[in-house]
Amino acid sequence: MNTMTHAPNSLISSDRVEGTNVYNGEGEKLGSVDCVMLDKAKGNVAYAVMSFGGFLGLGEKRHPLPWQTLNYDEGKEGYVVNMTKEELKSAPTLDVNEYDRLADRTYGASVFSYYGQTPYWTPIA
Amino acid sequence: MNTMTHAPNSLISSDRVEGTNVYNGEGEKLGSVDCVMLDKAKGNVAYAVMSFGGFLGLGEKRHPLPWQTLNYDEGKEGYVVNMTKEELKSAPTLDVNEYDRLADRTYGASVFSYYGQTPYWTPIA
Repeated sequence: MNTMTHAPNSLISSDRVEGTNVYNGEGEKLGSVDCVMLDKAKGNVAYAVMSFGGFLGLGEKRHPLPWQTLNYDEGKEGYVVNMTKEELKSAPTLDVNEYDRLADRTYGASVFSYYGQTPYWTPIA
Repeated sequence: MNTMTHAPNSLISSDRVEGTNVYNGEGEKLGSVDCVMLDKAKGNVAYAVMSFGGFLGLGEKRHPLPWQTLNYDEGKEGYVVNMTKEELKSAPTLDVNEYDRLADRTYGASVFSYYGQTPYWTPIA
């Protein structure tokens, strides 16, 4: 563990990301980060996988979020994503034993499309 | 946690990387992965930070390794790096409370240079 800040050039350790709360822009807690999914070959971060306390009635569902949708808020000591709870209800989900679906490019494309982001495997122009 | 394999296009979860053993090419255990350091802005993996059991007399020292130096070996259920124990003794180290040094580009350049790798912040041509 470390205590570094989140300046533009800074680094964050994986074990600090795991367990960090995720809020929406209205300050409502959406869930917390379960883990980060890494693309081994390309060396980039594919997803943060968010888990819920079940308050949305989703039980053990997970939400894969494109890494770039997460913005750290020092005051909240958590990540903020620009999404209402209603929008989150329609977002792609996974069961806890379905993490390998994340490596499927068709499923992945649907996730990145939902959030209006460029897929992690797209070469940088 | 998940059970996915390490095929070229596959993803790996951060919590599976943490704690995974690291071996050299001779099969000697060098240490284990403490955590992975992520570049938040660029969305890539900067380092795997390896810790030791102290058998090299390094106490609580950590070794930052360029992510691309780690190759997963299914048989060993661990990562293999192409480095002898002697080479590791000369490698850059950190104290456990010095992880923020990893964000320093001068220090970072020395690490990537030691392992003959391109720094994580270098744009892809």
